[in-house]
Amino acid sequence: MDKIFRVNMTDLTSSVEEVPANWAGLGGRALTSTIVAEEVVPTCHPLGPNNKLVFAPGLLSGTPAANSGRMSCGAKSPLTGTIKESNAGGTSAQQFAKMGIKALIIEGLPKEDKFYSLHLTKDGVTIAEESELIGQGNFAVIEALESKFDKKIGVMTIGPAGEAKMASANISVKDPDSKIRSHGRGGMGAVMGSKKIKYITIDSTGAGAVTIADPDKFKTAARVFAKALLDHPVAGEGLPTYGTNVLVNILNEAGGLPTRNFTYGQFEAHDNISGETMHDTIVERGGKTKHGCHAGCIIQCSQVYNDKDGKYVTSGFEYETIWGLGANCCIETLDDIAEADNIMDDIGVDSIETAVMFGVAMEAGILPFGDGKGVIRLLKEEIGNVTPLGRILGGGAGHVGRTYGVTRVPVVKNQGIPAYDPRSVKGIGITYATSTMGADHTAGYTIATNILNVGGFVDPLKKDGQVELSRNLQIATAAVDSTGMCIFIAFPALDIPECLPALIDMINARFGIALTGDDVTELGKTILKTERGFNIEAGFTNKDDRLPEFFNTDPVAPHNAVWDFSDDEIDAFWNF
Amino acid sequence: MDKIFRVNMTDLTSSVEEVPANWAGLGGRALTSTIVAEEVVPTCHPLGPNNKLVFAPGLLSGTPAANSGRMSCGAKSPLTGTIKESNAGGTSAQQFAKMGIKALIIEGLPKEDKFYSLHLTKDGVTIAEESELIGQGNFAVIEALESKFDKKIGVMTIGPAGEAKMASANISVKDPDSKIRSHGRGGMGAVMGSKKIKYITIDSTGAGAVTIADPDKFKTAARVFAKALLDHPVAGEGLPTYGTNVLVNILNEAGGLPTRNFTYGQFEAHDNISGETMHDTIVERGGKTKHGCHAGCIIQCSQVYNDKDGKYVTSGFEYETIWGLGANCCIETLDDIAEADNIMDDIGVDSIETAVMFGVAMEAGILPFGDGKGVIRLLKEEIGNVTPLGRILGGGAGHVGRTYGVTRVPVVKNQGIPAYDPRSVKGIGITYATSTMGADHTAGYTIATNILNVGGFVDPLKKDGQVELSRNLQIATAAVDSTGMCIFIAFPALDIPECLPALIDMINARFGIALTGDDVTELGKTILKTERGFNIEAGFTNKDDRLPEFFNTDPVAPHNAVWDFSDDEIDAFWNF
Repeated sequence: MDKIFRVNMTDLTSSVEEVPANWAGLGGRALTSTIVAEEVVPTCHPLGPNNKLVFAPGLLSGTPAANSGRMSCGAKSPLTGTIKESNAGGTSAQQFAKMGIKALIIEGLPKEDKFYSLHLTKDGVTIAEESELIGQGNFAVIEALESKFDKKIGVMTIGPAGEAKMASANISVKDPDSKIRSHGRGGMGAVMGSKKIKYITIDSTGAGAVTIADPDKFKTAARVFAKALLDHPVAGEGLPTYGTNVLVNILNEAGGLPTRNFTYGQFEAHDNISGETMHDTIVERGGKTKHGCHAGCIIQCSQVYNDKDGKYVTSGFEYETIWGLGANCCIETLDDIAEADNIMDDIGVDSIETAVMFGVAMEAGILPFGDGKGVIRLLKEEIGNVTPLGRILGGGAGHVGRTYGVTRVPVVKNQGIPAYDPRSVKGIGITYATSTMGADHTAGYTIATNILNVGGFVDPLKKDGQVELSRNLQIATAAVDSTGMCIFIAFPALDIPECLPALIDMINARFGIALTGDDVTELGKTILKTERGFNIEAGFTNKDDRLPEFFNTDPVAPHNAVWDFSDDEIDAFWNF
Repeated sequence: MDKIFRVNMTDLTSSVEEVPANWAGLGGRALTSTIVAEEVVPTCHPLGPNNKLVFAPGLLSGTPAANSGRMSCGAKSPLTGTIKESNAGGTSAQQFAKMGIKALIIEGLPKEDKFYSLHLTKDGVTIAEESELIGQGNFAVIEALESKFDKKIGVMTIGPAGEAKMASANISVKDPDSKIRSHGRGGMGAVMGSKKIKYITIDSTGAGAVTIADPDKFKTAARVFAKALLDHPVAGEGLPTYGTNVLVNILNEAGGLPTRNFTYGQFEAHDNISGETMHDTIVERGGKTKHGCHAGCIIQCSQVYNDKDGKYVTSGFEYETIWGLGANCCIETLDDIAEADNIMDDIGVDSIETAVMFGVAMEAGILPFGDGKGVIRLLKEEIGNVTPLGRILGGGAGHVGRTYGVTRVPVVKNQGIPAYDPRSVKGIGITYATSTMGADHTAGYTIATNILNVGGFVDPLKKDGQVELSRNLQIATAAVDSTGMCIFIAFPALDIPECLPALIDMINARFGIALTGDDVTELGKTILKTERGFNIEAGFTNKDDRLPEFFNTDPVAPHNAVWDFSDDEIDAFWNF
């Protein structure tokens, strides 16, 4: 039987609880958002005693279903002030699921100014004071804990940024290679830091396999599902070959690659940082072009990027990071970006928020556009050492904008806008504006249909159909984020008729239930409405569902497009 | 005939316009708020091209009416995101009025990265590039301009903080002694800095007297009015003797003197910083205990505070500043606070926001509580030199709180809460929560009736009557802020029956109209509703009319009072 693990940091106690009936059918984002909405006062200070940090594996996590190893992390976000769910790969989700941990809820704040660790076994949580690893980077933490326990130990940890409660701080999750995946967005690391938890270790010794109600049905569905993933040109070919960074040249061609802090839509040096160049570089240096963030991933969009001497630099090296430091900061050297990516993993900051932030920092004159070495220096010496400038930068794009009086600050609900210019790819602008999480491309990835011709085609430069596209994708994504599935299963799900039914069959076979496609859609709608309800109680209105002023006034080359949706058109998103 | 002076900084042009009919009967705050509400898009970036900076003298400014020399400055605030009116003494309001400048409206942003100055004569505005005085403090600017023009020149200027667009930056106004009064709150200096205007000079050569429709009636009313001011124990005796700092001991006694970043309600060393101690120190050192911020002030609450050697340190040395650096930062040395006050005037930051900010900075560990020399150092070396730490501090209390992850951050709508603990003086809490300007004691100064027994008595520790008290005072204050009158005329207006009719008679005599008391109340209501309408369009809701969470949860000694108004009780404020 699955359980809820609950930790109270105020009195340093923990408990193992029955799963309430209304949480039983939920997993991942559906569960974290439900728990946050039920238990967190929406107006509370995100770093105060009344916020809660919740981890929940997806409904299919821990099963043999391909690409089901995602963990959701939820709380009220210190970056956006909204509800937040941020999901990550790594080894934790599958460990949680096998140990029967339906969710881990961390509440309260310690009375004393000390740091702690949590140690999870199938029987419960041990809270211990921690001093040795305070101030250490995430790689050192993982290394130390693997040597204290063993290679199988699961780890979720915060770096110096999280300890310092910076709003861009992430939570790092150990991946199968002892490297790092991240609950990146929304400052979840700051919430963990506020609760004075440096790391969480997960010892799954004695955990059995996840029970599956109808193993034969499951196996059949899982096979159909896996085939759909491998058959799709994006999931089965583009992503494994070039990683997500395949998008640099595609977005540049579309004129939607935000460049020089969202001043232009194309980057002259795009070839230097493209997925194609990256692929060749990896091969040449003996890295890996394919790599999974969790066991059972068959898309393998990650990679291992080595330096000139063949030494490991980074993995999980994503398009959004490369775009952000590349085109948006005009840095032309992929090696500099890779090194920065590694440092961001180590100090524990969201690489999207941080990359968007550096664009604003460059506009503010903190460092020149194109200064890759400067970025590396500021990450290490300022953010990593938690200097005053480091705290400014670690506060994210909006924070740097406010601190320096910059007016071109690409954020929605104070979260940095990633990688796709909403003026020239209008569907994603609707997602940025309306997402319950602040600007988030993964919340409703219209790039699929606007740019990649997946799930049909909606002209990125026209307004027609964008609201409906974003709405359908946001609803579907909320549901997918609850299954433990990687977001990239959406590509085959949109194009290959057997894919989605197979996914639903797997859920039904796992739990012995009979969900329909409509049920899944309803679940997605319910999640979005629950999240929005929290935000409304926290003080958000449709006025917050807007892009920054400059998108309306400053046309972006090459299409000279502006953001031209009326308020009413945007607000129609919520008509469901 | 009065005129509107309009300056467009985008194309560096200016014009002199007729006064539109619906602005004719307005002055001061009524006029700045009306212009901002009519002409500024509420959702615009406060530092972008679509914000406007508006100056307007009061209806009675420039007349011989006692205490009528206040100027209103309005814009969308970069600190709060709300509409803002901040009024100040000094010589400008009377000069504007005599020159027939009903309002000065500054719009647009220069295309080039250069600073400018505006020179106002009765015939219009000259815009000139400015380089020599960039980076200079306000005292040096005034000195330079007096030597360039003459002693009579009016000056409104920003210091390094305004140039850097810090959200706590004020606009300094030359007073009759060539010292400084400030449009302090809400970051108006940042708006002026964003428009790249270092200073505005006012040459009133050739300006006649303000025309008065019925001089005899005016003279009679003015005499009654002045007598009421002098007869009142607070306006006629307390304030001239001890200045506003008379309040330290009074609030300490009442348990409403926020101490150690709003942790306690009383300060052990209150005697060291009290008005009584200050008075004796001033006398001993040959300073002045009485001093007016503008010609015609008969309350004379200001003073000249000298150092041990009898050398000028500061004037306009207010209770809120002394409380903020004193009790709230636990600094026990009045000389340190006076020196800090002088530096704040020079670099151009709001001394309330900055004092509240230092309380949060001390809680964040940036410097220890009680460290007066540290405050002086940070003001000079960090804010004054616009370092990264200086930018953090110059962003105000909320900004420091966000940057360091502090949860006890006394702000409403991101503006620092001044000098009166809302848990133990509950009426002022209603003003802080509901003011259209963010936390602002002057918006509806319930201290009068909660603590000073002016206008009756409403028990500060009980909820009864507080909403009505704050509502009545906010309505009255909005009207008073439109007359050019100093806020302290409210004391006699509340207690002496002849005072308010005399004020209305003066307005009627000035313009040859027949306003009634009800008209004035209606004006006050209209102003508040206009301002609130702007804020609602900007995205604010009743959820923003709340005090920070810690006031609800942390009782404050000695009364162990908490903030215990329900949302509905607060929202009832707007029932008019």
